[in-house]
Amino acid sequence: MSKIIAINAGSSSLKFTLYAMPEKDVLANGIIERIGLNDSVFTIKHGEGEKFQVTEDIANHEIAVQKLLDQLLALNIISSYDEITGVGHRVVAGGEIFKDSALVDDLVLEQIEELGELAPLHNPANATGIRAFKKLLPEITSVAVFDTSFHTTMPKVNYLYSIPMEYYEKYAARKYGAHGTSHKYVAERAAEMLGRPIEELKIVTCHIGNGGSITAVQGGKSIDTSMGFTPLAGITMGTRSGDIDASLIAYLMGKLGITDINEFVEILNKKSGLLGLSGVSSDMRDVETAAENGNEDAQIALDIFHNRIIKYIGQYVAIMNGVDAIVFTAGVGENSAPTRKIIIDGISWFGCEIDEEKNNVRGVERIISTDDSKVKVLLIPTDEELMIARDVVRFSEKH
Amino acid sequence: MSKIIAINAGSSSLKFTLYAMPEKDVLANGIIERIGLNDSVFTIKHGEGEKFQVTEDIANHEIAVQKLLDQLLALNIISSYDEITGVGHRVVAGGEIFKDSALVDDLVLEQIEELGELAPLHNPANATGIRAFKKLLPEITSVAVFDTSFHTTMPKVNYLYSIPMEYYEKYAARKYGAHGTSHKYVAERAAEMLGRPIEELKIVTCHIGNGGSITAVQGGKSIDTSMGFTPLAGITMGTRSGDIDASLIAYLMGKLGITDINEFVEILNKKSGLLGLSGVSSDMRDVETAAENGNEDAQIALDIFHNRIIKYIGQYVAIMNGVDAIVFTAGVGENSAPTRKIIIDGISWFGCEIDEEKNNVRGVERIISTDDSKVKVLLIPTDEELMIARDVVRFSEKH
Repeated sequence: MSKIIAINAGSSSLKFTLYAMPEKDVLANGIIERIGLNDSVFTIKHGEGEKFQVTEDIANHEIAVQKLLDQLLALNIISSYDEITGVGHRVVAGGEIFKDSALVDDLVLEQIEELGELAPLHNPANATGIRAFKKLLPEITSVAVFDTSFHTTMPKVNYLYSIPMEYYEKYAARKYGAHGTSHKYVAERAAEMLGRPIEELKIVTCHIGNGGSITAVQGGKSIDTSMGFTPLAGITMGTRSGDIDASLIAYLMGKLGITDINEFVEILNKKSGLLGLSGVSSDMRDVETAAENGNEDAQIALDIFHNRIIKYIGQYVAIMNGVDAIVFTAGVGENSAPTRKIIIDGISWFGCEIDEEKNNVRGVERIISTDDSKVKVLLIPTDEELMIARDVVRFSEKH
Repeated sequence: MSKIIAINAGSSSLKFTLYAMPEKDVLANGIIERIGLNDSVFTIKHGEGEKFQVTEDIANHEIAVQKLLDQLLALNIISSYDEITGVGHRVVAGGEIFKDSALVDDLVLEQIEELGELAPLHNPANATGIRAFKKLLPEITSVAVFDTSFHTTMPKVNYLYSIPMEYYEKYAARKYGAHGTSHKYVAERAAEMLGRPIEELKIVTCHIGNGGSITAVQGGKSIDTSMGFTPLAGITMGTRSGDIDASLIAYLMGKLGITDINEFVEILNKKSGLLGLSGVSSDMRDVETAAENGNEDAQIALDIFHNRIIKYIGQYVAIMNGVDAIVFTAGVGENSAPTRKIIIDGISWFGCEIDEEKNNVRGVERIISTDDSKVKVLLIPTDEELMIARDVVRFSEKH
């Protein structure tokens, strides 16, 4: 047995899951929040529902990792640092370079930092997490797992925008997508559950959480995905607008007296989506409650949320010229039976039918279409952390 | 018989078609170009292929209309001004106000000018044309025909963007679409040709020219269309980008050192699309030729052009939950048999099949799917000018 830790480092946070592999047992998980701010909060869940929590100032990611390791010792989750044989880091942007996960060396770390241009909020933070572990546990296998790798199989016809070609050639302006680890995992599980070779299948995977993306997976490969150059594009999200007419940006900047495009993109990222439309919340459950209580804007926000997912499924069925399976995953996709039903009922013409009884669950891996449904519909809880841990094992073996 | 003139006034041009109604005979048509510039070019086609052309300075639209009327007299196309009983003006933006064409009075003219905010390049020019005719032929029926009217039946779920609701409420930021006159005409013709009531039909209309848009017509009404707040959004066009990730704009403006968003929107409108991708031309035929000669960028431009149309058809099939007919119209849609074939072959899973022999025509109104094709495919030459003339007749009768 080896212990592997999966890390998702944000600019002021560090999420972690410690696995026993290959058993896939979660030994502990948790988060350190408000790193670099006052009153950082450090939470570990472990054992049979036990929880450790403390509030104290944690100045930076290196101190956060140090405290994490010490606390794992103190709680007897590990008996020495040496037990942790590998660490996997989620990295948001892998650009065109990283078509697979990668063992982290100095060059890889440098490339991750350079790709910060494509994900200014995420990659620098991801790199900070990597460096903190490198310093404290320099000998263990360190693997970077990229959100974008799965989508590097997209063909040009889908990843290029219809803008001057030199913008792609000079500035790498193209679609990269995100949530690749999740889309890959659920597509592969779907093939297993259907007992069919993934090479033969056309699958639309719907990763619907606070952020969300839809992917066309043909023959096991991502051929298109709804997120774009950054995770702003695509479907309506909690606070993100998804797709919008570019000319509307110029018009609204004029109206709002905004001269810096970045300021407007911030509005599209943080104040739009379900939150902007409903005026209530970025959380689907809050918006649903408000709609039930007669809030019309909340209802239209939900309608738009479903509508945009349906539109993406439609376009991916069209470009694949068919579909064998539609998969729902992530927060909303796993937990909201009404969302799944509304979407599948809306596209019944494609030959899919939901089994209401099977659909009436939260987070259970199962086929939720009727036996007669020509297109299968699956609910598959995603597990990006486990995918990260698996990649660490894969690279440890190569090593 | 009455003579009706249909006008499409641009900022430096005036296109016209003179009809004998209700016979629908075209008595003359033509264009005055470079109005307000040196060496304006005035062309009239009439009779059996006869053509009148002169180059002279024409300072403004009023003088242009005066010269047009005088020349119609000189060529014996009309024997007095009185013979022209009505004029119809194409107007690009009708906002949320104009759900149908409108008799032009002072209020309507003022509203058209106010809506210039939504179409700064077009509405002021359209208004200039209206005013010129008002001055010279004050007594005749004058009708404004809006590109957007047909789309005013779109439901909120499709016309709202996922941005803060107040931007819609305060600034009318929403999808308006365009080419409405054309989409309406071909959808209605399709129903007639299929011998079915339009109320029962789900139709995707593809208006594909140098500009292009796709519309979902359900029960005779536009429920969604690919153009957005302005005609920039949607499919890949001759020089327009269509859909693009908003965050890419901020990134590229930084890279290109552009600080004014309007300057970048100009690039998206004028230097993108087929032209930007291929580096060759905005004209499909040139791009096709370049691709045949081995230009890879030209080939990818064509692939993207087809791909985006396929994606929009897919999303409209999805939101209508079915499709009975797909219609091709406008320059490329009417004349490019390969384009129609590539698109329909690409979505054969929907139950549509092209009849290659029937498809092998330019601009002939006919059904081009096989007899067995579950979804019918139609080629219907559009006629926006005739639609405008018809609306003038309709309002003259009401008058």
